[in-house]
Amino acid sequence: MALLVEKTSSGREYKVKDMSQADFGRLELELAEVEMPGLMACRTEFGPSQPFKGARITGSLHMTIQTAVLIETLTALGAEVRWCSCNIFSTQDHAAAAIARDSAAVFAWKGETLQEYWWCTERALDWGPGGGPDLIVDDGGDATLLIHEGVKAEEIFEKTGQVPDPTSTDNPEFQIVLSIIKEGLQVDPKKYHKMKERLVGVSEETTTGVKRLYQMQQNGTLLFPAINVNDSVTKSKFDNLYGCRHSLPDGLMRATDVMIAGKVAVICGYGDVGKGCAAAMKTAGARVIVTEIDPICALQALMEGLQVRIYLWFCVGLWWESGTV
Amino acid sequence: MALLVEKTSSGREYKVKDMSQADFGRLELELAEVEMPGLMACRTEFGPSQPFKGARITGSLHMTIQTAVLIETLTALGAEVRWCSCNIFSTQDHAAAAIARDSAAVFAWKGETLQEYWWCTERALDWGPGGGPDLIVDDGGDATLLIHEGVKAEEIFEKTGQVPDPTSTDNPEFQIVLSIIKEGLQVDPKKYHKMKERLVGVSEETTTGVKRLYQMQQNGTLLFPAINVNDSVTKSKFDNLYGCRHSLPDGLMRATDVMIAGKVAVICGYGDVGKGCAAAMKTAGARVIVTEIDPICALQALMEGLQVRIYLWFCVGLWWESGTV
Amino acid sequence: MALLVEKTSSGREYKVKDMSQADFGRLELELAEVEMPGLMACRTEFGPSQPFKGARITGSLHMTIQTAVLIETLTALGAEVRWCSCNIFSTQDHAAAAIARDSAAVFAWKGETLQEYWWCTERALDWGPGGGPDLIVDDGGDATLLIHEGVKAEEIFEKTGQVPDPTSTDNPEFQIVLSIIKEGLQVDPKKYHKMKERLVGVSEETTTGVKRLYQMQQNGTLLFPAINVNDSVTKSKFDNLYGCRHSLPDGLMRATDVMIAGKVAVICGYGDVGKGCAAAMKTAGARVIVTEIDPICALQALMEGLQVRIYLWFCVGLWWESGTV
Amino acid sequence: MALLVEKTSSGREYKVKDMSQADFGRLELELAEVEMPGLMACRTEFGPSQPFKGARITGSLHMTIQTAVLIETLTALGAEVRWCSCNIFSTQDHAAAAIARDSAAVFAWKGETLQEYWWCTERALDWGPGGGPDLIVDDGGDATLLIHEGVKAEEIFEKTGQVPDPTSTDNPEFQIVLSIIKEGLQVDPKKYHKMKERLVGVSEETTTGVKRLYQMQQNGTLLFPAINVNDSVTKSKFDNLYGCRHSLPDGLMRATDVMIAGKVAVICGYGDVGKGCAAAMKTAGARVIVTEIDPICALQALMEGLQVRIYLWFCVGLWWESGTV
Repeated sequence: MALLVEKTSSGREYKVKDMSQADFGRLELELAEVEMPGLMACRTEFGPSQPFKGARITGSLHMTIQTAVLIETLTALGAEVRWCSCNIFSTQDHAAAAIARDSAAVFAWKGETLQEYWWCTERALDWGPGGGPDLIVDDGGDATLLIHEGVKAEEIFEKTGQVPDPTSTDNPEFQIVLSIIKEGLQVDPKKYHKMKERLVGVSEETTTGVKRLYQMQQNGTLLFPAINVNDSVTKSKFDNLYGCRHSLPDGLMRATDVMIAGKVAVICGYGDVGKGCAAAMKTAGARVIVTEIDPICALQALMEGLQVRIYLWFCVGLWWESGTV
Repeated sequence: MALLVEKTSSGREYKVKDMSQADFGRLELELAEVEMPGLMACRTEFGPSQPFKGARITGSLHMTIQTAVLIETLTALGAEVRWCSCNIFSTQDHAAAAIARDSAAVFAWKGETLQEYWWCTERALDWGPGGGPDLIVDDGGDATLLIHEGVKAEEIFEKTGQVPDPTSTDNPEFQIVLSIIKEGLQVDPKKYHKMKERLVGVSEETTTGVKRLYQMQQNGTLLFPAINVNDSVTKSKFDNLYGCRHSLPDGLMRATDVMIAGKVAVICGYGDVGKGCAAAMKTAGARVIVTEIDPICALQALMEGLQVRIYLWFCVGLWWESGTV
Repeated sequence: MALLVEKTSSGREYKVKDMSQADFGRLELELAEVEMPGLMACRTEFGPSQPFKGARITGSLHMTIQTAVLIETLTALGAEVRWCSCNIFSTQDHAAAAIARDSAAVFAWKGETLQEYWWCTERALDWGPGGGPDLIVDDGGDATLLIHEGVKAEEIFEKTGQVPDPTSTDNPEFQIVLSIIKEGLQVDPKKYHKMKERLVGVSEETTTGVKRLYQMQQNGTLLFPAINVNDSVTKSKFDNLYGCRHSLPDGLMRATDVMIAGKVAVICGYGDVGKGCAAAMKTAGARVIVTEIDPICALQALMEGLQVRIYLWFCVGLWWESGTV
Repeated sequence: MALLVEKTSSGREYKVKDMSQADFGRLELELAEVEMPGLMACRTEFGPSQPFKGARITGSLHMTIQTAVLIETLTALGAEVRWCSCNIFSTQDHAAAAIARDSAAVFAWKGETLQEYWWCTERALDWGPGGGPDLIVDDGGDATLLIHEGVKAEEIFEKTGQVPDPTSTDNPEFQIVLSIIKEGLQVDPKKYHKMKERLVGVSEETTTGVKRLYQMQQNGTLLFPAINVNDSVTKSKFDNLYGCRHSLPDGLMRATDVMIAGKVAVICGYGDVGKGCAAAMKTAGARVIVTEIDPICALQALMEGLQVRIYLWFCVGLWWESGTV
């Protein structure tokens, strides 16, 4: 790939969209710090004792303003940090610029291609000859996946001399993963083994990633300890519920500039995320229809005055709605 | 009619359901006084100067606890009061008992027949030989109607000697009105004229009554001045909106003991009353469908996330709803 | 006690407030049946096979219209039923009358004294010489407690000849319990042992009762199996949340007849019950202040826009509020 | 001023931020057309008959996507259009680009200086030697003001030869207005008279503008007819209420990226705009405090469960809040 790592004047690596947005990012960082008293209290309480002194932390998690406050808390506690996003669209370029300029190695921009995405992930994991990170902050499990696939390929290579074949899969994203591992093998056939050995563990933030981890644990293929952040009450009952209640209208407004009031909103699923989304749409003046197969959740939707439809009725229903006011 | 007026030990007339509920009524009166600071401030400010000294006030207005606070404010300012309800079902018997025992002549009970209703109205207007009340507090215009019909009949009787004929109308309620006037004529052929002459005016509280008054004003048949209370902002935007928002679930709960959450509620009309009712049902967890022919009100309902149906769709819609969850 | 059991023409025992309310109770029962499709489906599905044929079921649970539908479902499935309320105030007398007349032995009325309450409980448990019920439907654990205390007293009596001494306790309610057991001992010194032996088990509906049961299980003193109904999701997340959201305004309106809108409501605790109460007060137009010591629940209240106060601030706060609009 | 008018290939004038955003603007225009069925129905109904054939329309109104749909409706009905914004910050540059490229002469960009703002206004009014527009769509009354001040200055110049003196006022914005008129006078001393003569009238959309118009009407200085759009129910009860309910969280989210839930929001004034803002903040999970001096509006806020503070208590209150959770 033709992507080139850039360097700050102090020599720290990065690859972001537009370094000139760093000042704007810093302004929003300052707003966000006020909103995140937990992290800020960590800085006050643990900053002096530097518990992360010498630790290398790699993050694969939405490179937003809020993540930036997390990153600078890690560095305030002594860590060195390399970061990529866990989604090709979610990076806030001004956040990435501020962190790249001031605090950590960032490889992330809004609107990455899949190839660029995995290049960034590999960059965030690459701490040079001495192995990889001590800790991974993962969201969706992509950094964790890359190491596991890397170790697997290195073992096959060691036994058989065979390198991964990207054409062996139909999945275009997995083809990219295999290509990256293949290139790595040719440089250092122990690269991912070294990472695995150094790694203390990973924290995983979302359902998808946690499911992968439990599967690997069951198969006996999990290479290092993992912390399930996703199922903590402060995640599921706050992030999912109130986070989505906040973010859904925000996203709709920025993306479409159209009024939500008076619309019919169909929410598929009434778990914590669906509850937050439904509340947001309802209070914005939309009429909400919920589809749900879990009877408890369906009943909760009903008790909140929402219209609940199962699949068959739903199809006919949508046709029907189109004929009404 | 076999109804007999009763008298308190002090000689004040009354007819209520159960005098033993007076203590209970007094307790709720004390609660209500806290809720009605405007009336209570009137007592404090105007009690000493007794501006209603010698005034006779007749009320035809729901004989509830809240009305009781009004009645005792009138008496606190010096008035003598006679009262009936303006609805055969709305009397709170404990309120009527407390007022009958302590403060004013009351003729009202929950569950009157139409005959009893008009007997009560006539009793409330009858202040003895000296003519009727100085002021009427009317709600729906029935006291006002009785006087107007009485004066009309007396004029015909004076000119032609003819008394009203109840069989001249199909309307069973109006038959009762004519019977009462006929009986009155036989006792005193100037009874309603004397009332009209003494009367300073009437205040009218509700849309129905106000419409009747404007019609009489236009026809030139209105016999005395009237104050339109109904259209004041504190009535339409508070009583109608917040009053109904409070009272609708109250009534449904007392009458049916069934849960509102999860039900489909159809609100016919989205004026101030409809807005209050819809808000109450929505926040109680019902799904609300509004029928409305005024486009502005229909659009308001839509912007609040309510389902709006015009008549045709509504019929098909109800059939449809019955087939869904 | 001077209380006398009455009998229907068919010989079934009962003690209710006013048998003439049975028709009214039946009307509300018919409304409630529409609201309880689960129970009604049980009647349809299991009525023909009569799975409860010959079973004796004692209930100690609010004798309301909804409970009446449960009782008639039990009898529809073949059971014989004896019932008392688990609260001295919660009985709906028309519900009790309808059931007493038509379906089961009921001992309950609104406004029992504590002595009457325990008399009713003992009556509901007394199935005559053949021992007690096969199953108990308990709410708060009072029927369960009476059997446990009875068995304990019988064991002491067997060993020592000693009967319970009501004056041995300061607790006036427990004095009544001991008196009842003492009287029972004098009639049949194995009465509660026979109950215990026949009893298959108890279902317990509320937190208080469940806590007592877990304690007895831990102490090894639990005499029969128990089912924890309280912690099922359909109880805690529906009954507690939506039930309270419905019932709190209902109770306030019936008890006080004052408007909720514009008031300040203080909700102590923001668990499922508190969440339902706060939602009800907020949507009725009250301003809600929540007191909460659990940080997660406090944060949830905050995210719903409610004012949260810890104890110290709360006291000063109330003083403060009194000075504001 | 050094600003230069640009021209499209077809020779139409414009001045916008970035013509390359025209495609993006077109995409959002297509979304907005679906949301504006009234305007689209006008195109269908009146497009064929071209009622605006030959009409010149000048607009001074926020150059947003929604306004763009209005502009293209005017052109679809046959009008020629020149447009500027009525606010230095409100232009959506992609909307301006799309209209400038495809439909009308636009002079507007986000972040104008006051000098640029009035230059744009003057450009929008300048239809060349044949006089000004036939109609003005005004929002805030700035286009109307410029013509009135221009006519006034021309009259003085005609009588006395005196040109406006920008240094005669302390108001920096009015200095700019006078400069522009002064420059105009030197080119054509009848420029604004010609405008006035051609002009059929103005529609005015907002309170500020309407107040200016009524004042001029009272003073006898209003030069042409004006339509008060602001006081129509579809403006005050929809735009103000639901528009602000939608736009306030939108603006806060884009500007600050911080969560609204759990915050204390102070809304100053509870008219239609304040009602919409309060509803938005409340439903987003903020705790809302309203300041209001009108007793009716204050009572409405109270009935919605909002905390109401008058000025003095408010100051102490804010100090107080800072000490609570």
